[in-house]
Amino acid sequence: MKKKVFIIGLGLIGGSLGLALRESPQVESITGFDREGTACDMAAAMGAVDRTAGLLEGAKEADVIIICTPLGVYHSVIEQIAPVLKPGVLLTDVGSTKVQVMELFNTLPFGVYAIGGHPMAGAETQGIAGADRYLFENAVYVLTAPADTPREMVRILENLLASTGARIKHMEAARHDELVATVSHIPHLAAVALVGLTEGRQEELMLAAGGFRDTTRVASSNPDLWEDIAFSNREPLIRQLNALGERLNELKKALENDDREGLKQQLERAKDIRDSIPKVRKGLIPFCHELVCIVPDRPGVIGQLGIILDQEDINIVDIEILRVREGDGGTIRLGVASSEQAEEAVQALQARGIKAWLR
Amino acid sequence: MKKKVFIIGLGLIGGSLGLALRESPQVESITGFDREGTACDMAAAMGAVDRTAGLLEGAKEADVIIICTPLGVYHSVIEQIAPVLKPGVLLTDVGSTKVQVMELFNTLPFGVYAIGGHPMAGAETQGIAGADRYLFENAVYVLTAPADTPREMVRILENLLASTGARIKHMEAARHDELVATVSHIPHLAAVALVGLTEGRQEELMLAAGGFRDTTRVASSNPDLWEDIAFSNREPLIRQLNALGERLNELKKALENDDREGLKQQLERAKDIRDSIPKVRKGLIPFCHELVCIVPDRPGVIGQLGIILDQEDINIVDIEILRVREGDGGTIRLGVASSEQAEEAVQALQARGIKAWLR
Repeated sequence: MKKKVFIIGLGLIGGSLGLALRESPQVESITGFDREGTACDMAAAMGAVDRTAGLLEGAKEADVIIICTPLGVYHSVIEQIAPVLKPGVLLTDVGSTKVQVMELFNTLPFGVYAIGGHPMAGAETQGIAGADRYLFENAVYVLTAPADTPREMVRILENLLASTGARIKHMEAARHDELVATVSHIPHLAAVALVGLTEGRQEELMLAAGGFRDTTRVASSNPDLWEDIAFSNREPLIRQLNALGERLNELKKALENDDREGLKQQLERAKDIRDSIPKVRKGLIPFCHELVCIVPDRPGVIGQLGIILDQEDINIVDIEILRVREGDGGTIRLGVASSEQAEEAVQALQARGIKAWLR
Repeated sequence: MKKKVFIIGLGLIGGSLGLALRESPQVESITGFDREGTACDMAAAMGAVDRTAGLLEGAKEADVIIICTPLGVYHSVIEQIAPVLKPGVLLTDVGSTKVQVMELFNTLPFGVYAIGGHPMAGAETQGIAGADRYLFENAVYVLTAPADTPREMVRILENLLASTGARIKHMEAARHDELVATVSHIPHLAAVALVGLTEGRQEELMLAAGGFRDTTRVASSNPDLWEDIAFSNREPLIRQLNALGERLNELKKALENDDREGLKQQLERAKDIRDSIPKVRKGLIPFCHELVCIVPDRPGVIGQLGIILDQEDINIVDIEILRVREGDGGTIRLGVASSEQAEEAVQALQARGIKAWLR
């Protein structure tokens, strides 16, 4: 039976879920709610929801409810909607920690099936404007279903989420919170501490190259959200902060003791681990064969590249403008499906006087 | 007078300098040297050098020598070339630390003018294959000239580097090393420590979303290079590791004492500082007006976008494939010069049945 879905909170995640779920054959309709009228308007305009509704009105009719608000307002949302929920309703969320959320879900009336959720995906552009139908493509999506959840309810949620393209992974809430402390929350606090080192030192920041910007990007996130996340995962975070302190001490000791071999081993181990992280770039884009070309900075040049390669029956599967000097030229990276196509593309471009080489 | 330039070490930086300097009216010719024959061949093929030569042959003829090797081989390079250098030759480098380099340069014979250099730019693709004519566009390029360097020699180097598009900044070597410890080397060691936390825990890594990958990207760099860098900047690094430890302790104390206000203040201060970092994206690309569209995944679709916007006289100044589901579709971000053009582009795409909205 097709489901009436209600999304509470139309930000980046809520909006992206709406865009993806509207493609699902399991969905009858998607209703959305947000405190901000502008978010509601934009969600409707981009087609992330069929319509918007008040919180109670939407909750009352829904077969499936997805809470996509900040953790800090869960209590208030649950308190308001609990009295009006349909018996047999399926409730889930997308919050960054799960133990406290599952405790809260435990207070829901009998007949409400609550399964915690956490899609491990994000984007630089926050809010509904950053919503993307393919945001979750190939991303891990953790579900924390209580042990007594009927198998059928779990399957309904899994089937619903299939249209997101995410890879569902079931896990206990406590295990989830330990894992995200290590791969998400501690890196965040480390970025906060690193940025803090430059406090009041404008000259440092001026020198900050790409490495610093990448490493500290997460420090630009919303402080209110992260205050909630940190305190909802307090114990694992304190443990992991201690572990990080020990790791940094080892590095310091190697420097103090002039132990070049010791430092190198730590650098090598880190590289091995980091290199083993599965690359999930832009969803399912397969391994690309890449070439780089230098083009003049003039109107229509990107369209022309497309036309040149189209004439040779070469399909561009990825494109990135690497760098540009205005009024002069720029370098563009192109990805194609095979090494033969990459070589053909280089030749086709060179034949038209465009500098190009395989990367 | 035009200069004969000799680049020692044809990797990412050496190759990119070659590509940029060949456009300079100050340059007569560029000769390159690399231990690896393949790097020499590729540098010549992509036009990063006019020709390659042996180390001594190249050094003997050069008016300007740029050392672009790892720090670890500076001693050996200097020792070999010192006896054959022309009187009045200008020597510079691109190494990540400057105090030890300047001490080494001090051992050069009278009549050799050595000015330390460090372009604050990098790229994900290492080696000559990642070379990019516009790599340094708008990046900070630190020069550490000894106090007794003739003004004319400084000016020759500045004029030469003008074709890179970099912003020259003069600085004392010790000051430079303090600054890069904070914005480059400590973030690197922090990434190494963060990655270390996941050692032997494959499940964590599977959950690692974009945030972890960004924060720890630098941990994938070459361990040999970074061993050299760390030990050539030992004292500042030990100082800054202590400072980082204190910052992390403050965060831990806030968590332990349930001090929500204290944690939030630290998060807010970090966000303010991080947000104040000047954005140097892809050189001089001006602030873009952005739109996003959903396109089917089929051959030629990127070329078609280019053609549609070209027909409306809208120039694409930036393009990025955000995410793709193979055989289904993908989201593409387009950047154009004005908000009017962005709106026209949305309309033109929508008129052809392509979902599009302003970001």
